[in-house]
Amino acid sequence: MADLHITSPSNPRLKELVALRRRRARDESGTTLLEGTEELLLALEAGVTPFAVYHCPELMHEAGPGAVEAARAAGAEVVELSRTAFDKVSYREGPDGVLAKVPAPGLSWDEVELGDHPFVLLVEGVEKPGNLGAMLRTADAAGVDLVVAADCVTDWGNPNVIRGSKGTVFSVPVVSTTRAQAWARLTGHGVAVVATTPDTDVVHTDVDYTGGVAVAVGSEKYGLTDEALAASTHRVRIPMVGRANSLNVSTSAAVVLYEAVRQRTR
Amino acid sequence: MADLHITSPSNPRLKELVALRRRRARDESGTTLLEGTEELLLALEAGVTPFAVYHCPELMHEAGPGAVEAARAAGAEVVELSRTAFDKVSYREGPDGVLAKVPAPGLSWDEVELGDHPFVLLVEGVEKPGNLGAMLRTADAAGVDLVVAADCVTDWGNPNVIRGSKGTVFSVPVVSTTRAQAWARLTGHGVAVVATTPDTDVVHTDVDYTGGVAVAVGSEKYGLTDEALAASTHRVRIPMVGRANSLNVSTSAAVVLYEAVRQRTR
Repeated sequence: MADLHITSPSNPRLKELVALRRRRARDESGTTLLEGTEELLLALEAGVTPFAVYHCPELMHEAGPGAVEAARAAGAEVVELSRTAFDKVSYREGPDGVLAKVPAPGLSWDEVELGDHPFVLLVEGVEKPGNLGAMLRTADAAGVDLVVAADCVTDWGNPNVIRGSKGTVFSVPVVSTTRAQAWARLTGHGVAVVATTPDTDVVHTDVDYTGGVAVAVGSEKYGLTDEALAASTHRVRIPMVGRANSLNVSTSAAVVLYEAVRQRTR
Repeated sequence: MADLHITSPSNPRLKELVALRRRRARDESGTTLLEGTEELLLALEAGVTPFAVYHCPELMHEAGPGAVEAARAAGAEVVELSRTAFDKVSYREGPDGVLAKVPAPGLSWDEVELGDHPFVLLVEGVEKPGNLGAMLRTADAAGVDLVVAADCVTDWGNPNVIRGSKGTVFSVPVVSTTRAQAWARLTGHGVAVVATTPDTDVVHTDVDYTGGVAVAVGSEKYGLTDEALAASTHRVRIPMVGRANSLNVSTSAAVVLYEAVRQRTR
């Protein structure tokens, strides 16, 4: 049973949800919108308490009602939407009738606990939410302890990051900061920063990832900045023999992270 | 100087180009449409002879005119389009004023030369053009000798494959076939097929990739079929410790291909 039913697409609550597609509204409210049953279940599993869950019974798949009830059990208000009301708020193709308003993901540096030998992914200047999302999925799979976004155009609460990450943005600790902060904090903690760049002869498999280590990748267009490269502990390149100029940034991150996994689990 | 100018968006030649967005038109004509200066240059470098290059001077970047002239030198007819004519045919965001009609990429099995110790990527049942494109970029970078698409929904001439591949679909040998053919041809040639699946205890770094080897990945939703797994030489899993259920198929392919690169270049 829903706490509230909304049938009109012009209901002001829907307007407020639609506004969360803009970064400013997310930053001001400290909240964001996630869509999808799987994403909601992952967020709940990660300990997220949604403010409210919005569902449309006619669109829901088998796992939908269970996810809605789990959100209610976690303390969320449950709101049922008509199909037209849901369509107004939904932002993805093939919606499965589940949306939730949740606290925007992301820690401040003061909340980050690096521990011994942390395994970090450090992302500088990335623009595309899909790439950040894909890197979060890889970070989750590889067992990364922290993902740091330095000077990134996209915020962690961006709906396309949440979607691309399959909800792992809520389970992997993430922090958003400046380049100067990121490099200073990590190297100050004794973390070796391994920077990926084409401009070196050191291959990515030639360095040691078994201690505290951060794998650093740069923006889609320009890669890591000179400042970032200068502040890093190692520079490595992924061997490439082909005609195109480079791997996609999220592919590069996956290749180096999994070399680290190989070394760290030997 | 163009051989031909088209200013009207209702010109029948444009209609024919637009039709190439449909697979049936590509299959019937054996041609496809590529868009982008970088993609055209990669195709030319790979020895492709475009039938025609269509360009819109007001949209072209610095490298555009050189690419158009290179296409002409390779034997392409040069057609200049007005902005409205170009917009009718263009299929990507942020067009750079260059399109070309080219032979659809892809070899038949009879044209494939496997050689000694080939390095192969074998893709079964993949649906999304973007994933095929991303895997081609990785295959190009990793120095893969052949990419085999078995029972894939998408054809190699799909414009979104060409775009996602950054044109590497023209430089990496690709073949499209059935599952039965693919596995029989490869294993019959002594190639070890390494199948990725969550259902094994063998980690992907535990097998030998130094001989003739094919890395096999399955569809986005279901992974490799039981038949494909049964016909493979090894089954391996990529270690995953996270909460989400799996890596994206193109990320998985990259991780295993680069483990093979590491072993093959030691």
